[in-house]
Amino acid sequence: MNINDTIVALSTAPGAAAIAVMRLSGDKAVSIAEEVFKSRFGKQLSKQDTHQVLLGDFHYKNTLIDEVLLAVFKNPNSYTGEDVVEISCHGSVYVQQKILKVLQDMGARLAEPGEFTLRAFLNKKMDLAQAEAVADLIAAESEAAHHIAVQHLRGGISKSLGSLRERLLSFASLIELELDFSEEDVAFADRTQLRELVDDIRTTLKNLLDSFETGNAVKHGIPVALIGMPNAGKSSLLNALLEEDKALVSDIAGTTRDSIEDTLTIGGIQYRFIDTAGLRKTTDIVEAMGVERTQEKMDKASILMYVVDPKTQSPQAVMTALDEIKRDDTTLLLVVNKKDLLKTAELDAFLDGLDRLDVDASVYDKVIISTKDDSDISALKQRFAGLVQWKTGSALVSNQRHWAALQAAMAGVLEVIQGIEENRSSDLLAIDIRQTLHELGTITGEVTTDDILGNIFANFCIGK
Amino acid sequence: MNINDTIVALSTAPGAAAIAVMRLSGDKAVSIAEEVFKSRFGKQLSKQDTHQVLLGDFHYKNTLIDEVLLAVFKNPNSYTGEDVVEISCHGSVYVQQKILKVLQDMGARLAEPGEFTLRAFLNKKMDLAQAEAVADLIAAESEAAHHIAVQHLRGGISKSLGSLRERLLSFASLIELELDFSEEDVAFADRTQLRELVDDIRTTLKNLLDSFETGNAVKHGIPVALIGMPNAGKSSLLNALLEEDKALVSDIAGTTRDSIEDTLTIGGIQYRFIDTAGLRKTTDIVEAMGVERTQEKMDKASILMYVVDPKTQSPQAVMTALDEIKRDDTTLLLVVNKKDLLKTAELDAFLDGLDRLDVDASVYDKVIISTKDDSDISALKQRFAGLVQWKTGSALVSNQRHWAALQAAMAGVLEVIQGIEENRSSDLLAIDIRQTLHELGTITGEVTTDDILGNIFANFCIGK
Repeated sequence: MNINDTIVALSTAPGAAAIAVMRLSGDKAVSIAEEVFKSRFGKQLSKQDTHQVLLGDFHYKNTLIDEVLLAVFKNPNSYTGEDVVEISCHGSVYVQQKILKVLQDMGARLAEPGEFTLRAFLNKKMDLAQAEAVADLIAAESEAAHHIAVQHLRGGISKSLGSLRERLLSFASLIELELDFSEEDVAFADRTQLRELVDDIRTTLKNLLDSFETGNAVKHGIPVALIGMPNAGKSSLLNALLEEDKALVSDIAGTTRDSIEDTLTIGGIQYRFIDTAGLRKTTDIVEAMGVERTQEKMDKASILMYVVDPKTQSPQAVMTALDEIKRDDTTLLLVVNKKDLLKTAELDAFLDGLDRLDVDASVYDKVIISTKDDSDISALKQRFAGLVQWKTGSALVSNQRHWAALQAAMAGVLEVIQGIEENRSSDLLAIDIRQTLHELGTITGEVTTDDILGNIFANFCIGK
Repeated sequence: MNINDTIVALSTAPGAAAIAVMRLSGDKAVSIAEEVFKSRFGKQLSKQDTHQVLLGDFHYKNTLIDEVLLAVFKNPNSYTGEDVVEISCHGSVYVQQKILKVLQDMGARLAEPGEFTLRAFLNKKMDLAQAEAVADLIAAESEAAHHIAVQHLRGGISKSLGSLRERLLSFASLIELELDFSEEDVAFADRTQLRELVDDIRTTLKNLLDSFETGNAVKHGIPVALIGMPNAGKSSLLNALLEEDKALVSDIAGTTRDSIEDTLTIGGIQYRFIDTAGLRKTTDIVEAMGVERTQEKMDKASILMYVVDPKTQSPQAVMTALDEIKRDDTTLLLVVNKKDLLKTAELDAFLDGLDRLDVDASVYDKVIISTKDDSDISALKQRFAGLVQWKTGSALVSNQRHWAALQAAMAGVLEVIQGIEENRSSDLLAIDIRQTLHELGTITGEVTTDDILGNIFANFCIGK
């Protein structure tokens, strides 16, 4: 990939539509466009003002290809920081392909995935965390995921770390200065101030690391496993939640064998509902595979919904099951189902039984529903809405790469703290500080390698 | 549909992409945008220059939704002729939906299909034939279809008819003037000049009407029926042409029962290849249905390819079949297949046999191929490229509505001619001239009804 090439790509979604937009970026963007575009008002493209939309003809070899709108964004005032030409054409598939082909014939190269944003990063239009946020923003499907991406796009994590990193950098210089005067046993870097600073950094890192669980779940959707005995009504519940007949429902126990995944957005957050095969000891090989998969799904879930049919499961059996499946880091929700099929006395007896057995009331949350009652389903959805807090002022870490770098930086910080406590020599302290700075620098891209950049931008779509 | 509403729509193809573009059009477009857009440079939107691209924040209720590019196109210098605001946002599905929703909350209405172009027509930014060409342009999938659409977009048919209609209109006025002086037996309209004009119009109409066959075929793809005895190798030939295994190929006669349709672009024209069940007398009901469908497909085809395996069909049988299927308005191509399985002497004998029987050499065109030989397939494609002439300077009629109007106008013109010849009275002539003018006027939209407009724009995509 030659970063000096002039690149071109379709920036809008593929397919026929009212309009489509292509972007050219690079030194030759304007001169290439000039060859194939004739403004209605005749002025030469290179002499046009930046950010001005022009109506004109896109032609090639004396053939009119389309009437287009074209705008020049002169460097550095463009997305990439290079000269950018944006062409808005009629959205026919033929026109899109033809224009892309002509621009390549004129010397532009088809852009690699993410190459526009890579160039924006290389030209310091944004830092690396912001560049990654662009991809997250495009992929965002829920309000919460969008919110996190926008925070990062506005430099959320960069702001949190930026000033701390700068202050640490000046300490690094002072300590390295001490090395030059090592014969004289002077301390330019005030150890008390340094200790305060690294304590600040540790606190910030801890908060960011702690936010990853929520951030990651919000970004990818929160996994909710639906579990319970066969015929407890898991599939019906999933259907009711999704308001469509995605799962196969039947009265035959063990109907659901495959884990069916579907998503639902509640209160701005996306939940990935996982329907599971029933948790039943079985000799049926196919169903046994389903049960095994249920265990796997449960291990990945942030929320477990245990669905119970009081007619077929005793309070004792339910409590035993809950004890078995409960996990420290997982929210457990007991759904008492099929209330429409129970007499009031039966239901009361069942609930009393549960209460008597429940020594630790905080183990689970309980809802009593019928999947046929819309208000029950709404109430259940409301429960979900309260489970995850994401509307925070500060940015949530949602990126695996950032999390790994923060962890490594934390390890460095802890070394520095220990070094100060043990009164280690300047050269040892300097090494740990440099290591911490390096890790912090990888997040925003002050420190980077081709490998890191390659990995990040390979996951972008073409045209961004 | 209230034409005074301010409308909004996604103009680019749906789905996640680098960017997406929304358009607002109407009186309130700028004031709505002003409420939700904050330019980086602070200037009020209503005070911005037209056609200027601005970077800024799209926000709603104190929440930043996206960083967007926005341009105002002030009326009448916009696509619709109204104030238009174009918003270019990050192409996430969430952002697209959110921005559309916010703009609706602010008072815009979701545009009906084609409503932007309808407004462009109503505001005289384009005539009706040009408006229809916009939809054709977006739908165009081949160079030829695109070429025709662009010609119409540039006013091809309007130019051909415009001046003739204007001259006819002035004759209509003169003849109607005669009615006011009917007592005095004067002739303001020179009958000889009128006769010359209507002859010109007749010639123009005839050329346009004649162009419809090609124009329509080019627009929708030229239907090519593949026919022949079972096992003649029709499916293999189709596969070779399409270079993929779309049709089911087997050695069992009668494998192909459904008509398989696929398209191929040769020399800028799209051909719709129709594979057919073999033309065999059969007692198999299912296959019999296939044979019936073959007849239907043959009736619709512009090109018939009759495929022959010389090993199983005699020259006499082939000529009988060709005589049976030949049609005046259809190109007939005889494909002598499986040459790789024949000895040279066998092939020569077969071809000699054909030549001796072929009394009228112009009935068909002949190619000799093996579907396994790539150069044979290329040569066959070259034959196709020569069959249709579409690179004409004048516009080809490709629109059913135009064709019907041209036919009606032609009927009017013939009446006028007959009227002049029979020396009919001014009032009778005037009626026929008015009728002709009316029909010509419906094409470009000088004359129109809500029904016509409704039918035309209902077939547009939303956002155009």
